[in-house]
Amino acid sequence: MALQDDSFWMRVAIDVAAEANTPFGAVLVDEEGQHVAGFNSTKLDGATAHAEMNVVRKMDQLDYDNAEDLILYTTVEPCPMCMGAVIWAGIGSVKYGLSIDEVTEFTKQIKLPSTELAKRSWRSILITGGVEKEKCFELWK
Amino acid sequence: MALQDDSFWMRVAIDVAAEANTPFGAVLVDEEGQHVAGFNSTKLDGATAHAEMNVVRKMDQLDYDNAEDLILYTTVEPCPMCMGAVIWAGIGSVKYGLSIDEVTEFTKQIKLPSTELAKRSWRSILITGGVEKEKCFELWK
Repeated sequence: MALQDDSFWMRVAIDVAAEANTPFGAVLVDEEGQHVAGFNSTKLDGATAHAEMNVVRKMDQLDYDNAEDLILYTTVEPCPMCMGAVIWAGIGSVKYGLSIDEVTEFTKQIKLPSTELAKRSWRSILITGGVEKEKCFELWK
Repeated sequence: MALQDDSFWMRVAIDVAAEANTPFGAVLVDEEGQHVAGFNSTKLDGATAHAEMNVVRKMDQLDYDNAEDLILYTTVEPCPMCMGAVIWAGIGSVKYGLSIDEVTEFTKQIKLPSTELAKRSWRSILITGGVEKEKCFELWK
Protein backbone atom coordinates (compact mmCIF):
# COMPACT_ATOMS: atom_id res chain seq x y z
CA MET A 1 0.00 0.00 0.00
CA ALA A 2 1.35 3.37 -1.00
CA LEU A 3 1.64 5.72 1.95
CA GLN A 4 -0.83 8.56 1.98
CA ASP A 5 0.27 12.14 1.51
CA ASP A 6 -0.11 15.27 3.64
CA SER A 7 -3.37 16.23 1.99
CA PHE A 8 -4.91 12.86 2.83
CA TRP A 9 -3.99 13.01 6.49
CA MET A 10 -5.05 16.60 6.92
CA ARG A 11 -8.42 15.69 5.47
CA VAL A 12 -8.74 12.97 8.11
CA ALA A 13 -8.07 15.64 10.77
CA ILE A 14 -10.61 17.95 9.11
CA ASP A 15 -13.26 15.22 9.00
CA VAL A 16 -12.72 14.37 12.67
CA ALA A 17 -13.10 18.06 13.56
CA ALA A 18 -16.19 18.53 11.39
CA GLU A 19 -17.94 15.47 12.83
CA ALA A 20 -17.43 16.88 16.33
CA ASN A 21 -18.58 20.34 15.22
CA THR A 22 -15.31 22.00 16.20
CA PRO A 23 -12.65 23.63 14.00
CA PHE A 24 -9.88 21.72 15.79
CA GLY A 25 -8.93 18.23 14.65
CA ALA A 26 -5.65 16.33 14.83
CA VAL A 27 -4.15 13.05 13.67
CA LEU A 28 -0.89 11.44 14.77
CA VAL A 29 0.54 9.10 12.15
CA ASP A 30 3.35 6.55 12.26
CA GLU A 31 5.53 5.33 9.40
CA GLU A 32 3.16 2.49 8.56
CA GLY A 33 0.16 4.79 8.37
CA GLN A 34 -1.31 3.65 11.67
CA HIS A 35 -2.85 6.63 13.37
CA VAL A 36 -4.80 8.05 16.29
CA ALA A 37 -7.19 10.95 15.82
CA GLY A 38 -8.86 13.45 18.11
CA PHE A 39 -10.78 16.69 18.28
CA ASN A 40 -11.13 19.56 20.72
CA SER A 41 -13.26 18.28 23.62
CA THR A 42 -12.72 21.11 26.11
CA LYS A 43 -16.45 21.58 26.73
CA LEU A 44 -16.66 18.02 28.00
CA ASP A 45 -13.16 17.32 29.29
CA GLY A 46 -11.86 20.67 30.52
CA ALA A 47 -9.36 23.27 29.38
CA THR A 48 -6.50 20.91 28.54
CA ALA A 49 -8.48 18.78 26.07
CA HIS A 50 -7.26 20.40 22.87
CA ALA A 51 -7.25 18.16 19.78
CA GLU A 52 -3.46 17.80 19.80
CA MET A 53 -3.30 17.01 23.54
CA ASN A 54 -5.96 14.36 23.05
CA VAL A 55 -3.96 12.61 20.33
CA VAL A 56 -0.59 12.94 22.08
CA ARG A 57 -2.18 11.29 25.10
CA LYS A 58 -3.13 8.34 22.86
CA MET A 59 0.28 7.95 21.22
CA ASP A 60 1.03 4.72 23.09
CA GLN A 61 -1.61 3.09 20.87
CA LEU A 62 0.79 3.47 17.92
CA ASP A 63 3.66 1.13 17.15
CA TYR A 64 6.92 3.04 16.67
CA ASP A 65 10.57 2.66 17.54
CA ASN A 66 11.31 6.36 17.63
CA ALA A 67 8.77 9.10 18.30
CA GLU A 68 10.73 11.33 15.92
CA ASP A 69 9.23 9.28 13.07
CA LEU A 70 5.69 10.34 14.04
CA ILE A 71 3.91 13.18 12.24
CA LEU A 72 1.22 15.29 13.89
CA TYR A 73 -1.35 16.78 11.51
CA THR A 74 -3.55 19.47 13.00
CA THR A 75 -6.07 21.88 11.50
CA VAL A 76 -4.67 24.79 13.52
CA GLU A 77 -1.05 25.43 14.54
CA PRO A 78 -0.45 23.96 18.02
CA CYS A 79 -0.73 26.46 20.87
CA PRO A 80 2.17 26.54 23.38
CA MET A 81 0.43 23.95 25.58
CA CYS A 82 0.10 21.51 22.69
CA MET A 83 3.49 22.36 21.19
CA GLY A 84 5.01 21.80 24.63
CA ALA A 85 3.41 18.35 24.63
CA VAL A 86 4.85 17.66 21.15
CA ILE A 87 8.31 18.63 22.40
CA TRP A 88 8.12 16.51 25.56
CA ALA A 89 6.73 13.56 23.59
CA GLY A 90 9.59 13.74 21.10
CA ILE A 91 7.33 13.87 18.03
CA GLY A 92 9.46 14.74 15.00
CA SER A 93 7.11 16.60 12.64
CA VAL A 94 4.14 18.93 12.88
CA LYS A 95 2.03 19.87 9.86
CA TYR A 96 -0.77 22.37 10.38
CA GLY A 97 -3.43 24.13 8.33
CA LEU A 98 -4.07 27.59 9.73
CA SER A 99 -1.53 29.51 11.79
CA ILE A 100 -2.19 30.89 15.28
CA ASP A 101 -2.18 34.36 13.70
CA GLU A 102 -4.78 33.32 11.14
CA VAL A 103 -7.32 32.16 13.74
CA THR A 104 -6.88 35.13 16.09
CA GLU A 105 -9.82 36.83 14.38
CA PHE A 106 -12.06 33.92 15.43
CA THR A 107 -10.81 33.04 18.91
CA LYS A 108 -8.42 34.04 21.68
CA GLN A 109 -4.95 32.64 21.26
CA ILE A 110 -1.64 32.56 23.10
CA LYS A 111 0.40 34.40 20.50
CA LEU A 112 3.58 32.36 20.44
CA PRO A 113 4.35 30.56 17.18
CA SER A 114 5.18 26.85 17.37
CA THR A 115 8.53 27.46 15.66
CA GLU A 116 9.52 29.91 18.39
CA LEU A 117 8.71 27.43 21.17
CA ALA A 118 10.60 24.66 19.37
CA LYS A 119 13.66 26.90 19.19
CA ARG A 120 13.61 27.24 22.99
CA SER A 121 13.86 23.47 23.33
CA TRP A 122 16.53 20.82 22.73
CA ARG A 123 14.53 19.20 19.89
CA SER A 124 14.75 19.68 16.16
CA ILE A 125 11.15 19.53 14.97
CA LEU A 126 10.07 19.86 11.35
CA ILE A 127 7.17 22.32 11.25
CA THR A 128 5.12 22.98 8.11
CA GLY A 129 2.11 25.31 7.84
CA GLY A 130 -0.58 25.87 5.26
CA VAL A 131 -1.54 22.24 4.59
CA GLU A 132 -5.10 22.19 3.17
CA LYS A 133 -5.46 25.70 4.52
CA GLU A 134 -8.70 26.56 2.71
CA LYS A 135 -10.45 23.45 3.95
CA CYS A 136 -9.28 24.18 7.50
CA PHE A 137 -10.61 27.69 7.14
CA GLU A 138 -14.03 26.35 6.13
CA LEU A 139 -14.34 24.69 9.55
CA TRP A 140 -14.69 28.18 11.07
CA LYS A 141 -17.69 29.15 8.94
CA MET B 1 -10.16 28.04 60.35
CA ALA B 2 -7.46 30.48 59.36
CA LEU B 3 -6.42 30.05 55.76
CA GLN B 4 -3.00 28.54 55.26
CA ASP B 5 -0.12 30.51 53.80
CA ASP B 6 2.09 29.98 50.76
CA SER B 7 4.66 28.05 52.75
CA PHE B 8 2.03 25.58 53.96
CA TRP B 9 0.69 24.84 50.46
CA MET B 10 4.12 24.56 48.90
CA ARG B 11 5.02 22.01 51.55
CA VAL B 12 1.95 20.01 50.55
CA ALA B 13 3.24 20.07 46.94
CA ILE B 14 6.71 19.07 48.14
CA ASP B 15 5.33 16.17 50.20
CA VAL B 16 3.28 14.88 47.27
CA ALA B 17 6.39 15.02 45.06
CA ALA B 18 8.61 13.34 47.65
CA GLU B 19 6.16 10.48 48.24
CA ALA B 20 6.13 9.78 44.50
CA ASN B 21 9.92 10.02 44.33
CA THR B 22 9.88 12.86 41.79
CA PRO B 23 10.98 16.49 42.17
CA PHE B 24 7.72 17.72 40.61
CA GLY B 25 4.66 18.25 42.79
CA ALA B 26 1.71 20.62 42.46
CA VAL B 27 -1.38 21.69 44.38
CA LEU B 28 -4.34 23.73 43.13
CA VAL B 29 -6.12 25.55 45.93
CA ASP B 30 -9.43 27.40 46.05
CA GLU B 31 -10.45 30.24 48.36
CA GLU B 32 -11.81 27.87 51.02
CA GLY B 33 -8.62 25.83 51.09
CA GLN B 34 -10.06 22.90 49.20
CA HIS B 35 -7.39 21.50 46.96
CA VAL B 36 -6.32 18.88 44.45
CA ALA B 37 -2.74 17.63 44.36
CA GLY B 38 -0.61 15.77 41.85
CA PHE B 39 2.89 14.73 40.90
CA ASN B 40 4.79 14.06 37.70
CA SER B 41 3.59 10.66 36.43
CA THR B 42 5.12 10.72 32.94
CA LYS B 43 6.74 7.29 33.34
CA LEU B 44 3.30 5.77 33.83
CA ASP B 45 0.98 8.12 31.96
CA GLY B 46 3.06 9.53 29.11
CA ALA B 47 4.76 12.77 28.22
CA THR B 48 1.89 15.11 29.08
CA ALA B 49 1.50 13.93 32.68
CA HIS B 50 3.43 16.72 34.36
CA ALA B 51 2.39 17.54 37.93
CA GLU B 52 0.66 20.76 36.92
CA MET B 53 -1.22 19.15 34.02
CA ASN B 54 -2.39 16.41 36.36
CA VAL B 55 -3.85 18.92 38.82
CA VAL B 56 -5.36 21.22 36.17
CA ARG B 57 -7.13 18.17 34.77
CA LYS B 58 -8.67 17.62 38.23
CA MET B 59 -9.80 21.21 38.76
CA ASP B 60 -13.48 20.35 38.30
CA GLN B 61 -13.24 18.61 41.68
CA LEU B 62 -12.90 22.03 43.30
CA ASP B 63 -15.80 24.35 44.09
CA TYR B 64 -15.17 27.86 42.71
CA ASP B 65 -17.14 30.61 41.03
CA ASN B 66 -14.19 32.05 39.15
CA ALA B 67 -11.05 30.15 38.18
CA GLU B 68 -9.12 33.39 38.68
CA ASP B 69 -9.48 32.80 42.43
CA LEU B 70 -7.52 29.54 42.22
CA ILE B 71 -3.84 29.38 43.09
CA LEU B 72 -1.47 26.81 41.60
CA TYR B 73 1.50 25.90 43.79
CA THR B 74 4.23 23.95 42.04
CA THR B 75 7.73 22.92 43.06
CA VAL B 76 9.16 23.95 39.68
CA GLU B 77 8.05 26.84 37.43
CA PRO B 78 5.50 25.56 34.92
CA CYS B 79 6.91 24.67 31.51
CA PRO B 80 5.16 26.16 28.46
CA MET B 81 2.87 23.12 28.19
CA CYS B 82 1.73 23.50 31.79
CA MET B 83 1.65 27.30 31.70
CA GLY B 84 -0.43 27.06 28.55
CA ALA B 85 -2.86 24.86 30.49
CA VAL B 86 -2.95 27.44 33.31
CA ILE B 87 -3.77 30.17 30.78
CA TRP B 88 -6.52 28.19 29.04
CA ALA B 89 -8.00 27.13 32.39
CA GLY B 90 -8.13 30.75 33.57
CA ILE B 91 -6.25 30.09 36.82
CA GLY B 92 -5.37 33.44 38.40
CA SER B 93 -2.16 32.80 40.33
CA VAL B 94 0.93 30.62 40.05
CA LYS B 95 3.46 30.26 42.86
CA TYR B 96 6.53 28.16 42.23
CA GLY B 97 9.68 27.09 44.02
CA LEU B 98 12.54 26.72 41.55
CA SER B 99 12.65 28.50 38.20
CA ILE B 100 13.04 26.76 34.84
CA ASP B 101 16.55 28.20 34.71
CA GLU B 102 17.40 26.79 38.13
CA VAL B 103 16.54 23.19 37.16
CA THR B 104 18.25 23.26 33.77
CA GLU B 105 21.36 21.78 35.40
CA PHE B 106 19.33 18.72 36.40
CA THR B 107 17.04 18.13 33.45
CA LYS B 108 16.18 19.29 29.93
CA GLN B 109 13.78 22.19 29.82
CA ILE B 110 11.93 24.31 27.28
CA LYS B 111 13.57 27.61 28.09
CA LEU B 112 10.62 29.96 28.05
CA PRO B 113 9.74 31.63 31.38
CA SER B 114 6.12 31.41 32.54
CA THR B 115 5.93 35.23 32.71
CA GLU B 116 6.88 35.49 29.04
CA LEU B 117 4.17 33.05 27.98
CA ALA B 118 1.57 34.83 30.11
CA LYS B 119 2.45 38.10 28.37
CA ARG B 120 1.62 36.52 25.00
CA SER B 121 -1.90 35.75 26.25
CA TRP B 122 -5.04 37.74 27.06
CA ARG B 123 -4.84 36.84 30.78
CA SER B 124 -3.36 38.69 33.70
CA ILE B 125 -1.79 36.01 35.87
CA LEU B 126 -0.01 36.67 39.14
CA ILE B 127 3.28 34.73 39.07
CA THR B 128 5.56 34.42 42.09
CA GLY B 129 8.79 32.41 42.26
CA GLY B 130 11.08 31.29 45.03
CA VAL B 131 8.45 29.90 47.43
CA GLU B 132 10.19 27.37 49.75
CA LYS B 133 12.98 27.28 47.21
CA GLU B 134 15.50 25.40 49.37
CA LYS B 135 13.04 22.63 50.18
CA CYS B 136 12.16 22.32 46.48
CA PHE B 137 15.86 22.11 45.69
CA GLU B 138 16.26 19.23 48.14
CA LEU B 139 13.88 17.13 46.04
CA TRP B 140 16.59 16.97 43.37
CA LYS B 141 19.21 15.46 45.66
